[in-house]
This record gives sequence, structure tokens and C-alpha cells, in this order.
Amino acid sequence: MGEFELIDRFFRRTPECRGVALGVGDDCALLAPQPGMQLAVSTDLLLEGRHFFPDVDPQRLGHKSLAVNLSDLAACGARPLAFTLALSLPHADEGWLAPFARGLLALADEHGCALVGGDTTRGPLAICITVFGEVPAGQALLRSGARAGDDLYVSGTLGDARLALEVLRGSMQVAPAVFAAARDRLETPTPRVALGQALRGLATSAIDLSDGLVGDLGHVLRQSAVGASIDVTAALALFSAGRGPAKVVPDDQQLAWVLAGGDDYELAFTAPPSRRADIEAASASTGTPVARIGSIEAAPGLRLVDAQGRAVQAPAVEGFDHFR
Amino acid sequence: MGEFELIDRFFRRTPECRGVALGVGDDCALLAPQPGMQLAVSTDLLLEGRHFFPDVDPQRLGHKSLAVNLSDLAACGARPLAFTLALSLPHADEGWLAPFARGLLALADEHGCALVGGDTTRGPLAICITVFGEVPAGQALLRSGARAGDDLYVSGTLGDARLALEVLRGSMQVAPAVFAAARDRLETPTPRVALGQALRGLATSAIDLSDGLVGDLGHVLRQSAVGASIDVTAALALFSAGRGPAKVVPDDQQLAWVLAGGDDYELAFTAPPSRRADIEAASASTGTPVARIGSIEAAPGLRLVDAQGRAVQAPAVEGFDHFR
Repeated sequence: MGEFELIDRFFRRTPECRGVALGVGDDCALLAPQPGMQLAVSTDLLLEGRHFFPDVDPQRLGHKSLAVNLSDLAACGARPLAFTLALSLPHADEGWLAPFARGLLALADEHGCALVGGDTTRGPLAICITVFGEVPAGQALLRSGARAGDDLYVSGTLGDARLALEVLRGSMQVAPAVFAAARDRLETPTPRVALGQALRGLATSAIDLSDGLVGDLGHVLRQSAVGASIDVTAALALFSAGRGPAKVVPDDQQLAWVLAGGDDYELAFTAPPSRRADIEAASASTGTPVARIGSIEAAPGLRLVDAQGRAVQAPAVEGFDHFR
Repeated sequence: MGEFELIDRFFRRTPECRGVALGVGDDCALLAPQPGMQLAVSTDLLLEGRHFFPDVDPQRLGHKSLAVNLSDLAACGARPLAFTLALSLPHADEGWLAPFARGLLALADEHGCALVGGDTTRGPLAICITVFGEVPAGQALLRSGARAGDDLYVSGTLGDARLALEVLRGSMQVAPAVFAAARDRLETPTPRVALGQALRGLATSAIDLSDGLVGDLGHVLRQSAVGASIDVTAALALFSAGRGPAKVVPDDQQLAWVLAGGDDYELAFTAPPSRRADIEAASASTGTPVARIGSIEAAPGLRLVDAQGRAVQAPAVEGFDHFR
């Protein structure tokens, strides 16, 4: 099956989306943002062996490939519009391509995000998606807006994807139900697109958590020239696999995964305490759990504290070294 | 050297370009197209071993990686605005990265095209660029506009890149000066960006020649529901390495490379005979050689003819089979 037949068969669709003037099938796609809108753009490259296991379910991989990009749009408060897909494949295998396209396009449809162009080539399995969203000019959520005194929030759960990764790597075992739930978090993350848009005009800063809370929050702190403290009790509660009666892993391991497990695709964001009710309303209206886990402070650096505000020793996780 | 340091060191720049509201360093870049403009988008994935040799000069590779994308913008008549770069690298080697960035950014600067975002990861060498340009709404050059009676044009030269490829593969030898010139065409193609913009409102269709004239023209013919004839004498003259006194390769080989050599990154376009003077003016004002090599016809299919209009047998090249 040749390149063009491949594209036609699995990926060509009539773009009848707002904002797309011309889709797949010419040298370029044409996007037509509404007047007053800026176009948010993000790109991610996923490689077999590095970002996913060779035997991952292709439908789930299709979902995740777009989800990690939509998560970047969410962190800017942008509304998804369109995406391009550049795909390198060892061979044109219908048994792989059909479910990959199904998973990818199902998530795209859910967010009204049109596939407008792409490139396919033969080579090691690699997936490069560039995603476009629109956001009213001047209203994008940035990393640079956190202010001392702001609350620090995180959406959803953290650390569960890492638990699944460790089980898949064979480094530990857990009960099948715990693993299944954690695996869903690793393989089919939920980009917080609705929450991101609801936070426009409300959050002072936001970032997408892909590398881990500590590392990614570090970008916000540096770009905002502030520091932060995180309440360890609130952080531990973000690990959903730890919510059952039986402990899955010791507290220190759980905390390390929450702080630096990676692959969470949640949002971390900041907002003034005066907006707590509005944040709760945004969480409720978008059906997205949100937890307040700390505060932004004038002193640079990142600190862990207990419920009484006393300093807690940080675990040895990647990312903390930037602050020492 | 970590990912963030890498980005900072070689690729971060302050975007002071029109149309770019926010560049590298947040979850998304923000583009702000002018009112009345559509955004042209194209993406290409280049892989070591498939699109370039492992030992290619990294500065030239940087140039080519962006050039092939700018060529897509040119084919739409769009003005370059910005691009994203997703890069997979076996290791963070400064001796490779510095010249790669130099070649990439020199061409970007030449076209006022800002690097606004990206992703870097460890893996086999792969380069995925997505490029953005702007074009007045409704004025983009498409593949679907060719009409029977139109002239068929090609910019620059064809087939020289293929000659260089064959020499590099060791399948033939030519004089050093001939090889050097052909190698420049293969490794540092010139995207016809100014010509593409000059053709707006003038050409009825246009396409970027990456796979080869026959294959790429086939997209125009199918999408325009027309056929074409190509004058073999005019086509042969497109092979610049064949212009010297000594024959480099036999005529049939030369013709095969012109028709299907690939990697040319020239424009093929169509325009009514009434616009011949305007096409010449566009060629002159942009300093881009343009040759009239045939005509669009109502009868579907692609035919080769001699200077007297008599049918010529097509060589056995890829792409022609679509028409038989």
C-alpha cells in the first residue's frame, strides 16, 4: 500500500470544522482563525521504545498521541481547532493502522479537532503531531503569571501513570484492578481541555504536567520569578491508586511518583485565594477534579511542608536538583 | 546536556517577527495572523537513512529540513511566518547541533520565519518541522485549479538532485564540478518562496515537486480533472548538469530523472496562455528561472510529445503507471 493510498484510506476526512478552510490533500492546509483570535501551536514527537512500548495497543497509542498535544493546548486555555500528523512506520500494516487511526480520530472528534495534513514515511515507528487551537488575543494562560500569595492547584491525579509504567517494566506487581486503572491513566490520559478554557481570566499561570510536577512546576516558578511550597498531605492524596484501604507502595515512593513520576498530562495552575469559589465552579462545570496543594511564595525555590506548615525533607527525585 | 539546556543553547531566540505573539518557552506558541489572512500549514518528517545520509553535513541538513517545508508554503503562495521543530537525536552532540542550528536558522532568517516551539527527545535521528505561512483569504494556490488550455511551467532545474544521489550511492561517477553543483541541488535546495507569492492571482494551480514531476503533477491533474502533455525537449533542458558540452548521462536516463528523479523542490504550476508576459515578469522580478514545458488538456492522462507535438514513448519511471 503506497503513501497516498494509506492517507486516503485511514486519515482523509472532509473537514467541516470551523476554522479549517482546506484540509488534507494539498501542499498546505489552510486555517482561518476567527477575528480577534490567536492561534496556539504545540508539537510533540513520540518514539517507540522511548515514549511507548512496542506492544502497546495501537488504538490507545492513537489516543495518547493526540492527547499529549491537546494537553498543551489545555495549558494555554486554547480551544482545539486542528492538527497535522507526521507518521513514520516500519510497514503499512492495516491491522495496526486501522485501530491507531480509530483511537486518534475518536479523541479528535470529541474535541472538534480536524486532521488537516500530514506526512507518512517508512522508518522506525515515530509519531509527530502538531496541534492548533484558538484563544482570544491576550487571554492565553502562560507560565509567567504566578504571583506570591497565589494558591497552587493540580487537576486529576498524579503518579498513577508511573505506577503502571513500573508494573509494565516488571519492577513491581500490584492487584489487577489497581494496575488496570493505573494503566488507563498511562495509556489513555485525559487532556484537560475544558478546564483549561474555564481557567481563562481566572488562573494566573498554568502548565501541562508531562515530565512530572516538580520539573514542570519549576518552569512556572522560574518564568514567574517566584517560589512555592507544596503540602505533602495534599500531594499524597493525588495518587489515586493509594486511595484504597490497602497500601500499594510506601508513602515515600508514592510521594516521589506524585512529584516526579511523569506522564500525568494534568494541569498545574495558580490563582489568587480570592478566586477559590470560581476555581471550584470551574472544576464543577467541567467535571474535572481539582486539588489545592500549596502556595506560591516570593522566596525562590520549592519547599515541601506538612499540614502544619513545617518543612519536610524532599525525596530524591529528578527535578529537585534544579532548586538546590 | 539536558533537553531544556539544549533548546536554550541552540534554538531559543527572541521572536520579534510579525505574526508571532509568543515564541519558544511555554506550552504553546501563539501566532497572530493579520486580519483577512489564512494560515497555511505543512508538516514534513525527515529520517536518517531514508531522507538523508548519516554523514551529511549537519549545516546543510539544517537548511534542507526547513527548505522542504518552505517549498510547501511556496506552492500555496504563502508568506512564511513561523515553524516548530521536533527533533529526535541519538545524543546531544554539540559538534552536530551547532552547525545544524546554524543552517536551519540562516534559512529561517532569510525568510523571516521564526522558530516558535519544539520538542526534543533521545532516539534515532529524526526531524519533524511544521511550518506556518500567511496568505490572503481565498488567494492560496491549489492543486485543483488547472484548466484545459493552460500552459504548464516548472521553476529552476529538475533531475540534478537525483544525479547527486546516484553518485553518493556509488552507482556512477561524474566530473567533480558537475557533482558539486548537483550535490548543492540535493543538499541545499532553494524553496521558491518569492515566486510562489508572485504567482498569486496568476497561476491557476501549483504544486511543490518533491517526489518527482510525473508523480506530483499527477496530483494536480487528478484534483483538477484534466490531463497534460509535456514537451520532451523542454523537459530535457531542465536538467542543468546536461547543459555542458559533454553528455553526463544518456538522454533516456536524463529524461527519467527529470520526470521522476525526486528531491527537486521546484514548483510546477499552470496559467492561461494570456498570462505568459505576467509569468515572465514574475520570474524576472523574483530572480527565479521558469520554463514552459507543456500544456494542460481536457483528455485525462499524461503524454510526452516532441517539438512537433508527436507522441513520444514515456520512459519506465515511477509515477507513469498511475496513468496507464
